[in-house]
Amino acid sequence: MSFDKSFSSLEVYISFVRDAIASEVLTSVNDTDLIRRMIAYHMGLDASNSNDHITGKHIRPLLTLLCADGSGGSWRLAKSLSVAVELVHNFSLIHDDIQDESILRRGRDTVWHKWGAAQAINAGDALFALSHLIVEKDENLSVECRLEALHIIDDACLSLISGQTLDLEFEDLDSISIEQYLNMIGGKTGALIGAATELGALFSGVSKEHQRNYREFGYQLGIAYQVRDDMLGIWGEVEKTGKMVGDDFHSRKKTLPIVMGLERSDKLRRMYNQANSDHLVFEDVVQILEETDVVEDIKHFEFNEVEKTLSKLSNACPRGYAGQALDDLVRNLLGRSY
Amino acid sequence: MSFDKSFSSLEVYISFVRDAIASEVLTSVNDTDLIRRMIAYHMGLDASNSNDHITGKHIRPLLTLLCADGSGGSWRLAKSLSVAVELVHNFSLIHDDIQDESILRRGRDTVWHKWGAAQAINAGDALFALSHLIVEKDENLSVECRLEALHIIDDACLSLISGQTLDLEFEDLDSISIEQYLNMIGGKTGALIGAATELGALFSGVSKEHQRNYREFGYQLGIAYQVRDDMLGIWGEVEKTGKMVGDDFHSRKKTLPIVMGLERSDKLRRMYNQANSDHLVFEDVVQILEETDVVEDIKHFEFNEVEKTLSKLSNACPRGYAGQALDDLVRNLLGRSY
Repeated sequence: MSFDKSFSSLEVYISFVRDAIASEVLTSVNDTDLIRRMIAYHMGLDASNSNDHITGKHIRPLLTLLCADGSGGSWRLAKSLSVAVELVHNFSLIHDDIQDESILRRGRDTVWHKWGAAQAINAGDALFALSHLIVEKDENLSVECRLEALHIIDDACLSLISGQTLDLEFEDLDSISIEQYLNMIGGKTGALIGAATELGALFSGVSKEHQRNYREFGYQLGIAYQVRDDMLGIWGEVEKTGKMVGDDFHSRKKTLPIVMGLERSDKLRRMYNQANSDHLVFEDVVQILEETDVVEDIKHFEFNEVEKTLSKLSNACPRGYAGQALDDLVRNLLGRSY
Repeated sequence: MSFDKSFSSLEVYISFVRDAIASEVLTSVNDTDLIRRMIAYHMGLDASNSNDHITGKHIRPLLTLLCADGSGGSWRLAKSLSVAVELVHNFSLIHDDIQDESILRRGRDTVWHKWGAAQAINAGDALFALSHLIVEKDENLSVECRLEALHIIDDACLSLISGQTLDLEFEDLDSISIEQYLNMIGGKTGALIGAATELGALFSGVSKEHQRNYREFGYQLGIAYQVRDDMLGIWGEVEKTGKMVGDDFHSRKKTLPIVMGLERSDKLRRMYNQANSDHLVFEDVVQILEETDVVEDIKHFEFNEVEKTLSKLSNACPRGYAGQALDDLVRNLLGRSY
């Protein structure tokens, strides 16, 4: 999904993030290296007319900058922190695509599909190391700030990897509880977005308690965003989500609608227990989800998660222009324009 | 290869390293997690009677502690730095085994062969994050020391990954130069061993110049060690190397004997250009290497690399008991007991 065209309060941050990512990535690795070619390609920096369809929307670095600005810091100096978070996110995408055998990402071949899984593992690993080096070398930040930032980033990485491990394990389970689901997406999506917002607050030097408010807002935003993404994976429009409706379904991913459906329908459980998921008919599953009231309940669930996010944002209380832009961004991401 | 039984000057360091690795790894991840099971298994911490055949020899953390001690530091406090280096090494082994499709490591199934490549990617990634967290959390070290240590580690990681990328690329090339070979093993083996020795010196707070001497010694030790390992891969004894002679050869790895042989023999190049390396007969290749004087020249090459290592060690000038133990370790690793 892309931002609405009318949505302009973020423009100055977006263009700053784009330039920062391009310059940090392209100056950090040797010109001719395969590693650089893979990373530049994956991040859409190789195209003559990069746009957010191939670079991604840079939500995480935008959050870091907006939270730095909203909590009173000179946000442009938080550049390395924001880029680091984006590189960690892209490291995880490159490895996820290998693990899920996904062949398309942002409308182009995935790195492993283009260069093979072995080299794609290296591309992800290199992004992981680079994300750290960018922070370590940034003399605009105090030594304390850099060390604490790295700690926040690595805590989030470990959660991210745990979440990804659970996601893969869950593919082999007949059903999981909503608690297990929330634990998994908390790792996969919540932790790094929580790190992104916390890093902005850390940069500004606010109190530890206030820093925690920012982290909790980001974490909750990740949960709400993922719940919404899971819904759109079944009921969304292809042109908005950028992926085929039903993709998650065929890979036996335990998305929220499926988690709820498996809890309620013996028929769905039997269908899922068949050895070959190719026999699953998407329309049949959707029909079961509708018959068992999953549709209504998931809307209710999502409404609550969005409310919680807005409340956490209100606790963090970002100020000024950035505070308004953050509110706009969150509502835009969560489809809550009212 | 295992240490000689008569080799006892290292015992106190070896037992410290073993305990440190076990306690750091086993307390850092949740008990029931698949990630912990994979990491503990890979590192041989799951066995009731762990020995260096399944845990590895811990050369890198030993070097960190010996260099800390030899440069005047209270070496036991360098624990987290030494463990971090070992975790980075094991992260790279887990990913290398996936990339090379190796099914055995230290006499047991590799992680990917036991749990699948997707989860093995996570196990490696988790070790990468853990290696950093252990340093970040270590309040026995100053903030400056921790940040500088992380910088050294990530620089080495990036070199390591670049070296691994080249190693895989070289499999598809007809031949490479000795310069390209040295560049590749400098990344794959030299960089992290250089980081291990540098971290010991950093910990002791010696001058930047002296710190560089330690790094250069470690880097050169890595080169000499790899050259020797490549020789043993063709002319070594299985019981000493722990791997089948000829393994590297069948995977079309550009080890030093092969690099030299391809430079000298049209016949060997033709054999290598055949589409299917299964047709390569190991004994034929060895015969060519002997006919073209590779055997003599590589011995000469190795002799020089070992001499350079001893000279770099002498520049670093580690003192006291640790200085002697370091000298013993290096001579033991490089088979130079005279």
